[in-house]
Parts: sequence; C-alpha cells; structure tokens
Amino acid sequence: MSYARECIGRIAGYVPGEQPQDRKYVKLNTNENPYPPSPAVGAALREFDWTRLRLYPEPSALMVRKAVGDVYGFEPDWVICGNGSDDLLTIAMRTFVDQGAVLAYSEPSYSLYPVLADLQGAGHRAVALDDSFQLPENAAELAGDAPLFIVANPNAPTGNLLDKATLRKIASEFKGVLWIDEAYVDFADESCLELCKEFKNVVVSRTLSKSFSLAGLRLGYAVASPELIFEMNKVKDSYNIDMLTQVLGTAALRDVAYMEENAKRIRATREATISSLKRLGCEIEPSASNFIFARPPKAAEDLFHRLKARGYLVRYFKLPRVSDYLRITVGTSEDMESFVGVFGELLDE
Amino acid sequence: MSYARECIGRIAGYVPGEQPQDRKYVKLNTNENPYPPSPAVGAALREFDWTRLRLYPEPSALMVRKAVGDVYGFEPDWVICGNGSDDLLTIAMRTFVDQGAVLAYSEPSYSLYPVLADLQGAGHRAVALDDSFQLPENAAELAGDAPLFIVANPNAPTGNLLDKATLRKIASEFKGVLWIDEAYVDFADESCLELCKEFKNVVVSRTLSKSFSLAGLRLGYAVASPELIFEMNKVKDSYNIDMLTQVLGTAALRDVAYMEENAKRIRATREATISSLKRLGCEIEPSASNFIFARPPKAAEDLFHRLKARGYLVRYFKLPRVSDYLRITVGTSEDMESFVGVFGELLDE
Repeated sequence: MSYARECIGRIAGYVPGEQPQDRKYVKLNTNENPYPPSPAVGAALREFDWTRLRLYPEPSALMVRKAVGDVYGFEPDWVICGNGSDDLLTIAMRTFVDQGAVLAYSEPSYSLYPVLADLQGAGHRAVALDDSFQLPENAAELAGDAPLFIVANPNAPTGNLLDKATLRKIASEFKGVLWIDEAYVDFADESCLELCKEFKNVVVSRTLSKSFSLAGLRLGYAVASPELIFEMNKVKDSYNIDMLTQVLGTAALRDVAYMEENAKRIRATREATISSLKRLGCEIEPSASNFIFARPPKAAEDLFHRLKARGYLVRYFKLPRVSDYLRITVGTSEDMESFVGVFGELLDE
Repeated sequence: MSYARECIGRIAGYVPGEQPQDRKYVKLNTNENPYPPSPAVGAALREFDWTRLRLYPEPSALMVRKAVGDVYGFEPDWVICGNGSDDLLTIAMRTFVDQGAVLAYSEPSYSLYPVLADLQGAGHRAVALDDSFQLPENAAELAGDAPLFIVANPNAPTGNLLDKATLRKIASEFKGVLWIDEAYVDFADESCLELCKEFKNVVVSRTLSKSFSLAGLRLGYAVASPELIFEMNKVKDSYNIDMLTQVLGTAALRDVAYMEENAKRIRATREATISSLKRLGCEIEPSASNFIFARPPKAAEDLFHRLKARGYLVRYFKLPRVSDYLRITVGTSEDMESFVGVFGELLDE
C-alpha cells in the first residue's frame, strides 16, 4: 500500500533536463545563459556579510519587489517573488485550482503544466496550438470554466511568440485567471506586461534563470493586480526567498542593461545558428527565445543520442506533435559553430 | 468576486514573526541563533565561483543529502531537502493529504500546521496535548483516519520534549504518516531519528535555521524510508534548493561540532535565564529548545507590547491555552541578562 494521495501515487512526476556530472558537455539542453551573471552579482556576493545568515530574510522579498517595480513600472504590491518561477506556478495552482477542478494550458508547451495539475489532483484541459503554434481565436471558450489558464509566451519548447491581440481577446473573455509565463520574454520583441494593468485576471511571470544568467539562484517574480497578489501571498511559504537570493537578485535586476546586452548577443547567435541549421536541411520555427526548435531531416531521437555521445546535450521530448524536433539552447557563438559542425557530420553519416 | 479558491479566500494566512526594519531590537521573537554560522560557511561563500550561477543547481541537492547521511547515518535516498522545513511541510501536505481529507496535528503547537491544512482545503483534527503539554496515550486513535499527523518535538511554542515511548506507540498504531518536526532537536537530549528506521510511516524533519544559525539560507531536510521520499520527490519543485544554499548548507553540516558547541552555550544560557525568570515569578515549562515558554505573573499581551517599546521583541500568541504566555528566544547571555533586567522592571511597574 502507498501512503501517498492517489493522484501522486499514479504519476511519474516531472523530469527536469539532465544535469550530468559524469563528463564535460556542451550544455544546450536546459536553456541556460552561456554568459555569466552581471558583475554586480559578483560584487554583491563579495560584500555580503555571511554572519547575517543567522537571521530570517525579509519575508516578502521587498528589495526584489522594489527593484522589479522600479525597472518595469509597478508598485511593489503588484509583485510576488518565487523560488524560481516554478514556485510561482505551484503557488498559482494552490491559490486558484481546487482538487477536482481543471487546469487549462496551451499544448504543446512547458511539460511541467500538466504535472502541476496532477500534483493538485486537478484535471487537464489542453488547448491545442494551431499548426503555427499559435493560440486559436476561441481559446477562452476552449479553456471554458477552468479557474486558471497557463500559457508560455514566448512558448516552450516551440520558441515562438504568441499573438498579443489573441492573448488580449482571451484575457477579456476568459472568466478565470490567465497566467502568461514570460520566462523567455527578454529574447523577444514584445512583452504582455501591460495586460496586467488592463485586466484584473492576468498574471505575468518572469524568471531570472534565463536572461539574467541566474538559474542557480532560483528567483522568479509575478506581476498582477494587488487583489491577486494578496491571495497568492497567503499560499507562498513565509520565507520562500533566502537572504542571499534577495541581495544577488536585486543586484542583477538593477543592472538590467547588462542583461539586455547579453540577450542581444544571444539573439544574434540564434539567428546565425538558425541560418546554418536551415542550410543543413532543418525546418525551424521562428524563435523569440534563447533556444531553437528544429525539425531535422533525420530521426530526432536518434540524433539526440548521437549528439550526446559526441558531447553535445540538447533536449528531446517524446511527446505528441514535438517528437520530430530537437530543442537546442543558444550558447556562445563558438559553441554554436562547433555544434553546427558536429550536427552536419551526424546528418551526413 | 474573488478568483481564489474558496479555501484560500476565506483565510487570513500565516503571519510570521516580526522582522522589523524600523529600529534596532534585541530580537528574541523568531528563535534565531544569536551566534553566527560556522566559519566554514564564510569560507565556502568566499570560495564560491559566482559565474556558476548561470547554471541550474543539481536538482536533488545530492551534496546536502550526502552530508546529512554521513553525519546522521542514512543513505542519501532516505533524505529529501526543502527550501526551509516549511517547504517540506508543504510538500508533506501535497503528497499525503487530499483536499477534503483532514490533517491531524498536536495542539498547542506550531501555528503553521492548521494554516497548511487550510491551504490544502483540508480539515483540521487537533489532538490536544495534556496539561504537561504531552501527547495523550490514545493520540493515534484521536488522529483517526487522517492521512498525516504532524507533531513538533521539541514542541513549539511550549518548548518541551514529547515522550518518546508515546511517539513510538503512535507510530505503531497510526495508519497514516507520522511527521515529527524536529526543528529544535539540537537543543534537546534526544531525537526520534531512529523511528524512521523502525517504522515505514515515520518522517523526521530538521532545519538548519535554528541550531546551525542559517535561518537566512532556507534549508531543511527530512528523513524517511525511500518509499516515502520517492513520493515526496514527485511533489517538490525540481530545483527547490539553489546552488549557494547547497554549497553553504553542506559546509555547515560538515562542521557539526561547531553547531553542537553553540547549542551547548545556548542551553546553558537557557537554564540560567529560566532560573532568573522563575525568581521574577514566572511559571516556566521545562525547555528542550532554544526558547523559553514563560507564564508571567502579569498579563502577557500587555508585557509583550511594553517589552517592544523598550526594544525587546518576544513572541505572543493570542490563541487558546497559550495566550497567558510569552515565548522568549534564548539569545546571548548578555542579551538575556539585559532582558531579565528590563522584564523585572516592567513587572515592578
């Protein structure tokens, strides 16, 4: 017999991308930034008085919320911080979705969303993206009476930006909370942050893991009307953001220019890599993220394994509609040139 | 209308102890350690290569689990880490307690437990401690069909150690998971860690916040049979322990002798303070923790406010059975001597 809830016992759980320790890889599998965080993070770490760690952190991560507010134009009570944006997604489930209710989410998208529904004992309502991986016009209708509808924008693993007019239409029609997961937005041309101000039921979440090069730190934030933030604050752990993360995350946010410069380099490398991969015969979706979703001319799963054997980790999803693709994180231009070289050899074999 | 679940909308949420920023207090309200963390933590921080923060942390916090295993005699697959032990308690709720089920917990105890039940949409089944704040012999019967029964040992806010024979009896009789929250155990004479090996339904959780002086870092761990750990791993966020916390927490755990030396000093200060407070007319429960639960000869709530005005923060709970008490964290001997002096003056006024 199992002591776990039935909804937990029957699932396998979410499997994160590999973080292998056995040998050195060119890691293009978990959308990490190839560049280091802002030097301001290093300076803040050196100046940090470690003896302060004996005290609890400020519970609401006020210094981070103020930095977010200053940079993006919101009052701190419009902001909640998470131990990575995964923590915020969990908080969203626990705030808005009863066990036995359903979670609506776009599909294909971040494979954590249906797992979060499972963990809450909630049902799945997948809203299928069309052939261009765009939301259908009647998405709000398809999401129906779900209390929460999560979409990733730019989408993962497809990499494309969703149409903002459609998202605005969904926000106005949908009766529950529309959660726009903008983990990759700093690599795109536009954001939906303004929709938080236009609609009381819209939440936009962000992370410092990708564009700010701080995956190891675990810091995300969500922006929404204070009414929604108030309810989510009841659900979050009291001290979910540790003291060092607050200090280092704030330093990174206040040096937004450094992040933007890195994002620009990554976008340039992305476009160059896309051109090269197209020349090798890959079909590629337009990318507004720091990864490339490529449909190679040979079996993707086999290429995934052969790339790994050559020291290149990419991500492969054995899931409907995306099993013919590889998701390739954009690394340094040197990494991508060597990757394209090896990939070309494998396609020729 | 509210977008939140009914079980969230109707509650106020947990209120953590004050972390005031307005002036300097002698902080005896949140059971922080008055001594700094191990110098090994400072050294690990200085040596940490901050550019590594661009990468995700190892998802299972293996280095921490190995350190816990080495220090306390368990294989790493008996251990799960949390972003503070509050994270572990949340994971416990989500792993074992369906919405609509009930959470059993001892009372009076850590006031977060019923809040966690509320957040899960679960009912409350409070098992009343007796007049000596001990669990009744028939506690398993009283907990009944609850899937999870949480007890704090040493208990908070009363500070006393629960009888181990009774806990063993409960473990053998109770049909669900018995969770023993040992946040304060390093200040006590004995632990229940062995019960994890004796019983498949026992989990023991610990935190580095108190005895290891790392409240600001957010690191806790739980020990249980691999079957229970396996289910809880499905529920935890993939990367719930950040990279710095893994490195610094491991350094602290591997210098357990430093922690034990501090715990010994705090216990000595505790006993001296208890003697002084008894001389001032307080009734005091025997404490196996780093705080003192004192029933002063005058109204506790009023004393709480007057102490605050004098620069001393303690904790007051306006809750049944404990509203005549103050919970006073044990600080340095200097802090406690000055506290006793001021407390004596307030009692004389």
